[in-house]
Amino acid sequence: MTGGVNGDGRPIGVALLGAGVVGSQVVRLLTEQADELAHRVGAPLHLVGVAVRRPQRHPDVPAELLTTDAAGLVTREDVDVVVEVIGGIDPVRGLLLTALKNGKSVVSANKALLAEDGAALAAAADESGADLYYEASVAGAIPLLRPIQQSLAGDRIVRIAGIVNGTTNFILSAMASSGANYTEALEEAGRLGYAEADPTADVDGYDAASKAAILASLAFHTRVTADDVHREGIRDVTAADIAAARALGCTIKLLAICEQVDDSVSARVHPAMIPRSHPLASVSDAYNAVFIEAAAAGQLMFYGQGAGGPQTASAVLGDLVAAARNRVIGGRGPRDSAYADLPVLAMGDTRTRYHVALDVTDRAGVLAQVAGVFAEHGVSIATVRQEGRGGSSGEGDADDGAPGPKDATLVIVTHSAPDAALAATVEALTGLDSVRGVAGVLRVEGLGRPVTELGGGS
Amino acid sequence: MTGGVNGDGRPIGVALLGAGVVGSQVVRLLTEQADELAHRVGAPLHLVGVAVRRPQRHPDVPAELLTTDAAGLVTREDVDVVVEVIGGIDPVRGLLLTALKNGKSVVSANKALLAEDGAALAAAADESGADLYYEASVAGAIPLLRPIQQSLAGDRIVRIAGIVNGTTNFILSAMASSGANYTEALEEAGRLGYAEADPTADVDGYDAASKAAILASLAFHTRVTADDVHREGIRDVTAADIAAARALGCTIKLLAICEQVDDSVSARVHPAMIPRSHPLASVSDAYNAVFIEAAAAGQLMFYGQGAGGPQTASAVLGDLVAAARNRVIGGRGPRDSAYADLPVLAMGDTRTRYHVALDVTDRAGVLAQVAGVFAEHGVSIATVRQEGRGGSSGEGDADDGAPGPKDATLVIVTHSAPDAALAATVEALTGLDSVRGVAGVLRVEGLGRPVTELGGGS
Repeated sequence: MTGGVNGDGRPIGVALLGAGVVGSQVVRLLTEQADELAHRVGAPLHLVGVAVRRPQRHPDVPAELLTTDAAGLVTREDVDVVVEVIGGIDPVRGLLLTALKNGKSVVSANKALLAEDGAALAAAADESGADLYYEASVAGAIPLLRPIQQSLAGDRIVRIAGIVNGTTNFILSAMASSGANYTEALEEAGRLGYAEADPTADVDGYDAASKAAILASLAFHTRVTADDVHREGIRDVTAADIAAARALGCTIKLLAICEQVDDSVSARVHPAMIPRSHPLASVSDAYNAVFIEAAAAGQLMFYGQGAGGPQTASAVLGDLVAAARNRVIGGRGPRDSAYADLPVLAMGDTRTRYHVALDVTDRAGVLAQVAGVFAEHGVSIATVRQEGRGGSSGEGDADDGAPGPKDATLVIVTHSAPDAALAATVEALTGLDSVRGVAGVLRVEGLGRPVTELGGGS
Repeated sequence: MTGGVNGDGRPIGVALLGAGVVGSQVVRLLTEQADELAHRVGAPLHLVGVAVRRPQRHPDVPAELLTTDAAGLVTREDVDVVVEVIGGIDPVRGLLLTALKNGKSVVSANKALLAEDGAALAAAADESGADLYYEASVAGAIPLLRPIQQSLAGDRIVRIAGIVNGTTNFILSAMASSGANYTEALEEAGRLGYAEADPTADVDGYDAASKAAILASLAFHTRVTADDVHREGIRDVTAADIAAARALGCTIKLLAICEQVDDSVSARVHPAMIPRSHPLASVSDAYNAVFIEAAAAGQLMFYGQGAGGPQTASAVLGDLVAAARNRVIGGRGPRDSAYADLPVLAMGDTRTRYHVALDVTDRAGVLAQVAGVFAEHGVSIATVRQEGRGGSSGEGDADDGAPGPKDATLVIVTHSAPDAALAATVEALTGLDSVRGVAGVLRVEGLGRPVTELGGGS
């Protein structure tokens, strides 16, 4: 039988769904490392079938393994573990639910599905006693979910902040190093294979939001879906923003941030300025890095390659060994637990800090007027710097053409305040007659560093 | 019964051996997080006893739990898991073997014991089907053993290189930042609580060697003991060495390095120059960081606090939750596997690179003579720089008093060669009449970076 414990030394049957960039590497590693994997599992791993849409496109997979009948494959008697590297919500959801209901363990790299409907998958796994592993869904090769679920199981995680999307990190790194604008950097990313033809999932933050939902769910024992995650992408980050960050001793990164605040959970994805002295600031190109802060363990950082065929396959195979080993010796991997069931904090109620650059008329009383608007909204200012107007105003600035000789730029960094108060402040500032335009607004993450590190010029 | 699976919802009995810096934090976290831990385990954790030598010294532990009879505690019927945070080889070895033979699972933070006699503990665990976890034995709070054993179970680890001892890292950081010599920096470490009254285990590399043995054993599926690890400490690192490293764009760190070289394992602990651009170079004070390179996953880095009561207790509790959960639902954690059983390479056969600073007589032909000695030993030179004699010769240099006006320093960095050939080269150089003394010898680790990063001045 397929759903029970394999105690008789027979091979563990593996079904693979998908044979693309990751799947072909899974096949390669299963073949090349067959002996070692058998030692680690306690029984040989036997690849019984590979479901693909167009068999003729996969000459590297033995022809007799290829099938277009994924639904038939996941219920085969000789399948113990289903490995899914197709991606997307449907038809994968139905296939994996069927597999779990039939007692097959599932290993998935599918962040979108896990972030949208992880609860249904977890429930199906619990019902049949099968395993559900998905280490590869977040940060590729970097061991992250297992440390959160298991290594830190005796601790209290308070915050996760990280760079979990390689495409946007490549684009922001390119903008910072070359001065390129967003469109130029995106084109370069596409040329080098770091961005897909349709980059929406990456640049608009959907990919990072799915990962944030998965991380927050595991860290805070609360079901958080991608829809619960506040999401802003990097399309609006300008070369002027990058320059403004540099002037503050900062760099801009797209961050996924998950926090427990009192008895609520906050999960968000947005670009933010971080101090250049912070370890995340030096994570460049397509690398990923994630900070985890726990009450007893303190700050931990995990760093590595967040994407790529072999890298993602490494994480998939680690899960496959665990699931297969549980078939051999009994027991189950960690269950998704949602016992804490905390409410998700709205973005407006989440405390953040803003960097605001204002193009203002350079006359007496302007700063007092601007500061008054901040005060009215209960927002405390950390630093203000006044600059003569250079050429650094935002691309969308209507005044770009002919700034008067009496213009100046005010660069303001706030202390932390509810995000809604900060947004309302910026909105109110645009109504002042002395404010000619908002040249840039970005959140600032000190990431635990003292505020003083954010002051001063470059 | 204590050795079997607890399927009836009764509490999991925990015995704690030791209530010092780590043990007292284990008691605190078990108490404060009781509800959350019960959710994660599936049953309450019940602390049934705490074995200490002098009960009156532990007013923070409930008096009725304290006992001096550790041997009696580890065999009690109501104990499922024994948590050991005493440290040292004996009498702990006997206590843990007894516990395992009686079917109790063991969680230990004891690097010395695991590195010396892990095989006996693993065998005892296998025999009774109990668990043996020891995440806290290496790098404190940083999840490291679980990623190596489980997350990377489907990959092939080729190299581990890291900073795994906080005391020596603090001392070397202090020397680099203040120019202090070794003795001054050690005293400062002692004053601030980073070094023990007898710092031998740290500064002579015993602690790091134990950790290297544990890491190499798990990574390469081969039993490696502390005695197999080549070990050099930091007592001989001079302020001149630090300055020489800086001139090469490097910094000096005590590294633990474990490699698979062809069909052998190499494990070593020694100070080494590493490029200042490498992420390990910026790991300062008492922090730990470990790089793992795997065939498919590529380079991964793990960073965090390697010591401290709460930090180490976090790792201990993660293991305790895993062991307790296995009691509740059945199954076992990963076994230590030594199926590969690779031979350990002698240090002399391990390929390394040297930095050699020679005080030489400044006359024609000296460089040719020196280069000839390298060539005779089959050692290829990467860079040579000749410097006028400053005040930077080694502390032990007999010529220190009155250098002649015609002296110079040759700074040589080699390409990689067998360590024995490099050592023999240095020995032969001291026999040249033009060489007045060896001002410094240190290994250089490029850590995968191109050689060019090591060339040039500061």
